[in-house]
Amino acid sequence: MTVAEKWVPSVRYRGDHLLILDQQQLPHHTVYLNVTSIGHVWDTISKLKVRGAPAIGITAAFGLALWSNTVKEDDLSIFLSKLKEQRDYLASSRPTAVNLFWAIDRVAAAAQSATSVDDAKKRIESEALHIQEEDENTCRKIGEYALSLLQDGDAVMTICNAGAIATSKYGTALAPFHLAKEKGWTLSVYANETRPVLQGSRLTAWELQANDIDVTLITDNMAAHTLKTKNIKAVIVGCDRVAANGDTANKIGTFGLALQARALGIPFYVACPLSTLDLVTASGSDIPIEERPEEEVTHINGVRIAPEGIKVFNPAFDVTPAEYISAIITEKGIIKGNYTNELPKLKEEHK
Amino acid sequence: MTVAEKWVPSVRYRGDHLLILDQQQLPHHTVYLNVTSIGHVWDTISKLKVRGAPAIGITAAFGLALWSNTVKEDDLSIFLSKLKEQRDYLASSRPTAVNLFWAIDRVAAAAQSATSVDDAKKRIESEALHIQEEDENTCRKIGEYALSLLQDGDAVMTICNAGAIATSKYGTALAPFHLAKEKGWTLSVYANETRPVLQGSRLTAWELQANDIDVTLITDNMAAHTLKTKNIKAVIVGCDRVAANGDTANKIGTFGLALQARALGIPFYVACPLSTLDLVTASGSDIPIEERPEEEVTHINGVRIAPEGIKVFNPAFDVTPAEYISAIITEKGIIKGNYTNELPKLKEEHK
Repeated sequence: MTVAEKWVPSVRYRGDHLLILDQQQLPHHTVYLNVTSIGHVWDTISKLKVRGAPAIGITAAFGLALWSNTVKEDDLSIFLSKLKEQRDYLASSRPTAVNLFWAIDRVAAAAQSATSVDDAKKRIESEALHIQEEDENTCRKIGEYALSLLQDGDAVMTICNAGAIATSKYGTALAPFHLAKEKGWTLSVYANETRPVLQGSRLTAWELQANDIDVTLITDNMAAHTLKTKNIKAVIVGCDRVAANGDTANKIGTFGLALQARALGIPFYVACPLSTLDLVTASGSDIPIEERPEEEVTHINGVRIAPEGIKVFNPAFDVTPAEYISAIITEKGIIKGNYTNELPKLKEEHK
Repeated sequence: MTVAEKWVPSVRYRGDHLLILDQQQLPHHTVYLNVTSIGHVWDTISKLKVRGAPAIGITAAFGLALWSNTVKEDDLSIFLSKLKEQRDYLASSRPTAVNLFWAIDRVAAAAQSATSVDDAKKRIESEALHIQEEDENTCRKIGEYALSLLQDGDAVMTICNAGAIATSKYGTALAPFHLAKEKGWTLSVYANETRPVLQGSRLTAWELQANDIDVTLITDNMAAHTLKTKNIKAVIVGCDRVAANGDTANKIGTFGLALQARALGIPFYVACPLSTLDLVTASGSDIPIEERPEEEVTHINGVRIAPEGIKVFNPAFDVTPAEYISAIITEKGIIKGNYTNELPKLKEEHK
């Protein structure tokens, strides 16, 4: 099997259905869900079967295409108003990742200049496919920039899964490891398991292992000891939303990891596409933090691991203040320092 | 049920056997193991059925009593030499907790001045019982000192289980919560679940809930977000060994929690009996860190949660450097600041 053949795509569009890799069944089973309605798309996003900010955006974009292919309506303005309803419906599937809104807004916008319903349908499909294609190039670029901050032989830590399966290909935080492999470099990765949903253990460990990349699994609370004793050169994470001042929302645990990296003098990098920058949101305190069901903490694989009736706090994300982020790595370059000035400049340059 | 009746003792000595609370079966089942040989004691410690530095010490001390009650030997010097062998055997059950060595050395020392084998046996039993009794008083004192650092209504975070079941009674880090309850104070506790073995979720959440103390369970990687958003006034942890300079070994995750508490300006307290001070060990880098089987990380309740064949790093403890410890709370008072000077002074004063 060549490296290229090992890619397991996260989402595939087939006109009347989507094939979505069920990430809840990983690492044990590689199963594709046959998703045929927008309600099913909503469910698939909401239940974390597809996850990762870019992959959620791609899936939602395809969700609108799927819907538009089946809708029977000849009046363009009624069609566009229904499209708006469907956009709002998908927007409610998850609150934190900004790529979701970015992707469905982009698809909805593409339909606005249509001259007929058929034309609108074509534009929606084409825009969704374009978003997916773009994402692959974006991730490759992010990986190249990220790699410029690393050296052959480095050990790096990550949390959650900002990998190929969280995007169209390559991933964001994991892109440098995939590209290093192509280049013949040896990077070793420490993957934090990422409780409660175990994306690090189930997805990152699986994805890197499947691509013959050196990966070691640790529990989240082993981070500090590992950072200190295993000569880790950098921490690199993906993200769900970057506010205008550089504050970054990502999987729960990211904030703590940033604090620990800072205390131990290890650079902490955030890798993300420009589409993750949300310059309308002033700072991290304005980012809504999704709280999820307590069963994610009290049960694993349906088996109870905590006392009956115990009170649980289960935030799915946290916000890392900009001051703890050594650099933000995008497909258009690496930003350091004054994020409040640099983020809008970069986004404006590449509009 | 009164508060007093809710205590579930960790270890009970019955002459020809020990009753040991099987902490591996908590929180689902409250089961006492009938332990009848020193080999069984070794196994019970090694497999974490009994855990918590003081409870391990008490169990090991009773293990020597159990052995001495069955040994058939009339020659005192042969008996003492066999006792030394058994002491060394038990010392190999776990490498990190210093109370283990302290307790078995104390029992072995008590036998040295015996005038006959029978006398030695009596001294061994009496010393082991004395260690257990002392521990209860010690924990109560630790709790009182710890409470002097808190106020009614405070929220506090802890990791692992330094509770009643990790000691003879009350616990160390959890002692202030038990005493606050007696006093009519309301403290709320955030318990980190403490992967991989889940002592926080299985034991601390269970112990506090069983005693009607307000406890909320979080995963370990939620610590930073919780510390920042839930108005946490202090972090308090137990420990397995304090080196002469104040560096402290405790359950994996403690070091990271200390770094996070420091970054967020929250005091970080270590609660432990003087017997946990190991002034022979100069600093944390001299404390051996036990690495445990990878199945603890890859499986939960026998169910695989990580990919087959994945590489794992599983250190059971980490070392928190003294500079991150706001105070060490002992049964003889609270130490702050220059641990290298203060620790030997305190230990000398209370020899």
